[in-house]
Amino acid sequence: MLSLHDVAVRLGELNGWVLEGNAIQKEYSFADFRQALTFVNAVGELAEQQNHHPDIMLRYNRVILTLSTHSAGGLTEKDFELARAIDAR
Amino acid sequence: MLSLHDVAVRLGELNGWVLEGNAIQKEYSFADFRQALTFVNAVGELAEQQNHHPDIMLRYNRVILTLSTHSAGGLTEKDFELARAIDAR
Repeated sequence: MLSLHDVAVRLGELNGWVLEGNAIQKEYSFADFRQALTFVNAVGELAEQQNHHPDIMLRYNRVILTLSTHSAGGLTEKDFELARAIDAR
Repeated sequence: MLSLHDVAVRLGELNGWVLEGNAIQKEYSFADFRQALTFVNAVGELAEQQNHHPDIMLRYNRVILTLSTHSAGGLTEKDFELARAIDAR
């Protein structure tokens, strides 16, 4: 598990991700439901590639991703790798 | 908006949907993330066809759908039409 210091450093390198309890979270907005669903599928592909899956909340044109490593009880490098990959897509 | 009586009648005709505040909710389980994502896409197609969109929570192999008609401040026939279509797919 990453220290709070390491989490802060990594969060500072990302855009729009916030600390939420033991997880990091980001909300995305799209023009409509279909575009939001397309994004969810792209996130799904990255999640499968990295074998690490965010919680995905899809509410019409908005998507909220929540990342944490349940097996470690907190945030790990895997969460930040996936967050970076999602935002670099 | 449907009366509580009408909601109860319609809920009784469905399987696994429960009343949750002003909404109805159902949780589905799948073998893995990919199957859960396939289900989310099928729900998305039905939602677009009916122009009525559930909140969709995807957590690895589980999907929670929450339906209500925000514009009406509660449950309407549209929610039950979509619930029936999802479970008939």
